[in-house]
Amino acid sequence: MAKNDKVIKEITSMEEDFAKWYTDVCIKAELIDYSSVKGCMIIRPYGYAVWENIQKIMDSLFKEKGHENVYMPLFIPESLLQKEKDHVEGFAPEVAWVTMGGEEKLEERLCVRPTSETLFCDHFKNIVHSYRDLPKLYNQWCSVVRWEKTTRPFLRSREFLWQEGHTIHETEEEARKETEQQLNVYAHFAKEYLAMPVIKGIKTEKERFAGAEATYTIEALMHDGKALQSGTSHYFGDGFSRAFGVQYTDKENKLRYPYQTSWGSTTRLIGAIIMTHGDNNGLCLPPAVAPVQVVVVPIASHKEGVIEKANEITKVIGKVARVKCDTSDQTPGWKFAEYEMKGVPLRVEIGPRDIENGQVVVVRRDNGEKTLVKMDDLANEIPKLLTAVRDGMYEKALARRNAMTYDAKTFEEMKDIADNKPGFIRAMWCGDRECEDKLKEELGVTSRCIPLENEEHLSDKCVCCGKEAKHMLYWGKAY
Amino acid sequence: MAKNDKVIKEITSMEEDFAKWYTDVCIKAELIDYSSVKGCMIIRPYGYAVWENIQKIMDSLFKEKGHENVYMPLFIPESLLQKEKDHVEGFAPEVAWVTMGGEEKLEERLCVRPTSETLFCDHFKNIVHSYRDLPKLYNQWCSVVRWEKTTRPFLRSREFLWQEGHTIHETEEEARKETEQQLNVYAHFAKEYLAMPVIKGIKTEKERFAGAEATYTIEALMHDGKALQSGTSHYFGDGFSRAFGVQYTDKENKLRYPYQTSWGSTTRLIGAIIMTHGDNNGLCLPPAVAPVQVVVVPIASHKEGVIEKANEITKVIGKVARVKCDTSDQTPGWKFAEYEMKGVPLRVEIGPRDIENGQVVVVRRDNGEKTLVKMDDLANEIPKLLTAVRDGMYEKALARRNAMTYDAKTFEEMKDIADNKPGFIRAMWCGDRECEDKLKEELGVTSRCIPLENEEHLSDKCVCCGKEAKHMLYWGKAY
Repeated sequence: MAKNDKVIKEITSMEEDFAKWYTDVCIKAELIDYSSVKGCMIIRPYGYAVWENIQKIMDSLFKEKGHENVYMPLFIPESLLQKEKDHVEGFAPEVAWVTMGGEEKLEERLCVRPTSETLFCDHFKNIVHSYRDLPKLYNQWCSVVRWEKTTRPFLRSREFLWQEGHTIHETEEEARKETEQQLNVYAHFAKEYLAMPVIKGIKTEKERFAGAEATYTIEALMHDGKALQSGTSHYFGDGFSRAFGVQYTDKENKLRYPYQTSWGSTTRLIGAIIMTHGDNNGLCLPPAVAPVQVVVVPIASHKEGVIEKANEITKVIGKVARVKCDTSDQTPGWKFAEYEMKGVPLRVEIGPRDIENGQVVVVRRDNGEKTLVKMDDLANEIPKLLTAVRDGMYEKALARRNAMTYDAKTFEEMKDIADNKPGFIRAMWCGDRECEDKLKEELGVTSRCIPLENEEHLSDKCVCCGKEAKHMLYWGKAY
Repeated sequence: MAKNDKVIKEITSMEEDFAKWYTDVCIKAELIDYSSVKGCMIIRPYGYAVWENIQKIMDSLFKEKGHENVYMPLFIPESLLQKEKDHVEGFAPEVAWVTMGGEEKLEERLCVRPTSETLFCDHFKNIVHSYRDLPKLYNQWCSVVRWEKTTRPFLRSREFLWQEGHTIHETEEEARKETEQQLNVYAHFAKEYLAMPVIKGIKTEKERFAGAEATYTIEALMHDGKALQSGTSHYFGDGFSRAFGVQYTDKENKLRYPYQTSWGSTTRLIGAIIMTHGDNNGLCLPPAVAPVQVVVVPIASHKEGVIEKANEITKVIGKVARVKCDTSDQTPGWKFAEYEMKGVPLRVEIGPRDIENGQVVVVRRDNGEKTLVKMDDLANEIPKLLTAVRDGMYEKALARRNAMTYDAKTFEEMKDIADNKPGFIRAMWCGDRECEDKLKEELGVTSRCIPLENEEHLSDKCVCCGKEAKHMLYWGKAY
C-alpha cells in the first residue's frame, strides 16, 4: 500500500449479527485487545480513558456524599470468606484460589477477591467500637475476579474493574437510606453522564446478592432488546455484623450490632454504552466520558493556511472541550470513518472555503446533523452542541426503550412477546419463586426488578400462575 | 471517660526504637491497619488520600510526556512468564500461584503479576507491526504481588500498589532517552512534591532488574541512615522483543526488533515520606500530597462568634488550599497533638482575642514556627506558607542527608563508617561483583548506585580490593 496504508475499518452490521457487531466495535474502536490469559481482556488506552472519565465523575459524586476511598487486600483467606453462610455459598463456586506462594504450599488457601464484604467486616471489627466511630462511608476502586465459564469483553470477564462501596451505620434507617441514596447516584450518573435511561428497582429474593436483605438495581435496555444490570446497591441489615462480631457501644452504653450496605458498578458500563448508543458506523460516546469530545479534520490540508487555521481553532476549542486535531496524511474520508468508529461526539471540518467564510462545519456523531458555526463563536457553540448530543442520545435511547417495552397479562401473551419481540416485558407476579423459575425455564426471561417508580397495576393476577398478584415486575432476557 | 473520650496518642520515640516508631506512626496517623491476610495491609482513608494525591500529580507528569494508561490482566500464565530467561529467574521464586478456578484444577497455573513486562510484550506483539505503530508509551496503575517472607507497612508487603510504565520504540537511542527521562520525572517528583532529596544513579549489574540491560534508580536517605530505593527506570534493549518475537517493519520495509523500557514507583513512597520527614510527634506531610493542608482549630470555642468566624476563614482558605475546620468537642490540646500526629502542614488557631485583633496564629508543622496573619491576608499568605513548609522540609532533609554522607578510601575506613555511622558511604569500586559481595557480607552494605551527577574521583583504588577503580558508588544499608 502507498502512503495512506490504513484502510477504513469494516464491522458486521448489528442486524446481521449483534454479538459479532459488539465485539467488532470493541476491537475496531480500539477499546480492548484479547490477551493470552483466558477470559481476561486488555483495556487499551482509548477504552481505559473512557473508564478514567467514568471514575473521575463517579468518584466526585461519591465524595460529595461523604465517602472516602480505601484499599483492602487482593486476597481473602478461605476461613474469612466462610464466615457469612449465604455469602460464601454465592461466591465460593466461582473464585480463583491461590494455593502456592513461591515454592511453598500455603497452609490456608486464599481466594482472589470476588467482592470484599468479608475484608471490610474484618476491618470494621478492628476500628468500630463506639457510636462515635460511625458511620464509616468507604469506597474502593480495584479489580475483582470471578471464574466465569463464558466471557465477553466488558460484559462478563474473569477479571473486571469496579468500585465497591461499603458502609456501616448505627441504625437500620440510616443504612436503608444509604442504600437508596447510592442507587440514585447510579441512576443519576447513567442518565446525565452516560445518556442512558434506566429503570430503578428492587430485585426479587431469587436475584438478590448473596448475603443481602435487599438488592436495588438499575436496569438498562440494550439495542438488541436484552437487559443489562448496570449497578446494584445492597442493604445487609446486621447480618454481616453478627457473622463477623462487629459491635459498637451506643450513647446509652449498650452493645449493638451496626447495619451495613454495599454498592458496586463496573467496566460493564462501557459495554452498556456500546450497546445503548452504538450503530453500524461504530461507537457513539456520551460527551461526558468521551476521551476526545471534538475532532478537528482539515480539508484540502495541502492548501496554504489550512493546517495553521485548524491548529488555531483547536486551541480555542481546547479551552472548552477535550479536542484533537488530526493533521496526519490520511484522507478526510478515512478520518471521518475512523472518528465515527471511535464515537467522537463532534467533528469539525475546516477547509479553504470555510476559512474564507470565517466558519466551520460541525457534524454530530449521534444523528449526523451538520451545523455551520462562525469561528468566533466556537467557544460558545461547542459546549452547547455537546449538550445537544447528550440530550439527543438520551431521547433516542429512551424512545427506543419505550418502544421495546411490552405489557403482558397472560402467560400466552408473555410467551408471544418473549419469542417474538425483544425488549422489556412488564407483567404482574404473585411473589412466588416457582413462577420466576417457570418463566425462566419456559420463556428464557428473568425478573429484572420491581420498579421503584411508576409501578402500574396491570391486572389482579400473576402472569404465570393466575393467583393473586403482588407486584408489577420488569422481565427480560439479560446479559 | 467523660465527653472527651479520646486520649492523646503516644508513640515510641525514634531514638529509642526506630522500627517501632515507624509502625506506631503508620497506625496512629491512621495510614494503615493490619489485616487478617498475612503480609498484606489495609490502606485507610488518610493513607489512601496521600496515595491519591501522589497518583494525581504523577499521572499528569506522565501524560505531559505523552504516556497513556492501560489495564492488563492480573494473571500471567506460567508459560508466558518463562519466555524471558533472566526475568523468570528473578521473579518465579517470589510469586503467588493460582492453581484452582472454582472447583476445577487449572490446566496451566497462573501467577498473580509481580510486574507486567511479559503481558505488555504479549500485547505489543499483537499491535506493533509497522514503524507507524511506534512508539507506544503506556502506563498502568494497579496492584502487584510478591511473596515476601518478612513484611513492613508500605516498605515491603506481599501486595502493593504501584504504577508501571512500559514503552516500546524504534531505536535504542529513543528507548535510552525515555529511560533517563522517566528517571528525571521521578527525581523531579521526589524533590518538588515530596520535598525529598534523592541521588539519581545507575545500578550495578548485581542490583539490576531481572531482564534489564540497565537499571536507573533514585535513592533517598531515611532518618535512621538507611537508604530507600524510591523509583526505578529500566532499559531493556531488544531482549524482551526477541524473546517474545515482537517485530516491526521499518521505513525501508525491513523487519526489526523494537527497543523497550519499563519504570515503576510504588506505595513505598509513603514509607519514604514517613521516614524522611517524620519526628517524635508523628507524621510530617509535604503540602503537595497532604490530604488536609491546613487545619483550623477554634480556641475557647464556646465563646460567642468563635465557631462562626472559624467557619468563615475556613471558607476563605478553602479557595487556596485543602482545609478542614475541627469544631468537635475535643480540647485544643488534643487537636494540636492529633493534627501533628497526622502531619498536617499548617495549623490555624483562632480565638476571641484573635478575632478582636482581626488576625490568626498560623503554626508550621515542620518547624513549629508561629506567624500572625491578618484575616484579610489569609488567601495570600496560606499558599506562601505552604511553599515555605515544602522548602523548609527539603532543606532540612538535604542538610541531614549531607551530614550523613561519608567518604571512605580504604576498607578499614569503610568498616568503621558502616559499623558506627548510619548513612550513605561514598567509595571507589573496581567494577567486580566479588567486591560487592564481600562488602555486603562483611559490612552489611549494598551498592546503591553510581551517581549520574557529581561523581567524584575519591581515589585511584577500589575500596575493597585495592585494584584500579572504575567508579565512585554510593553504598549503604538499605530497606
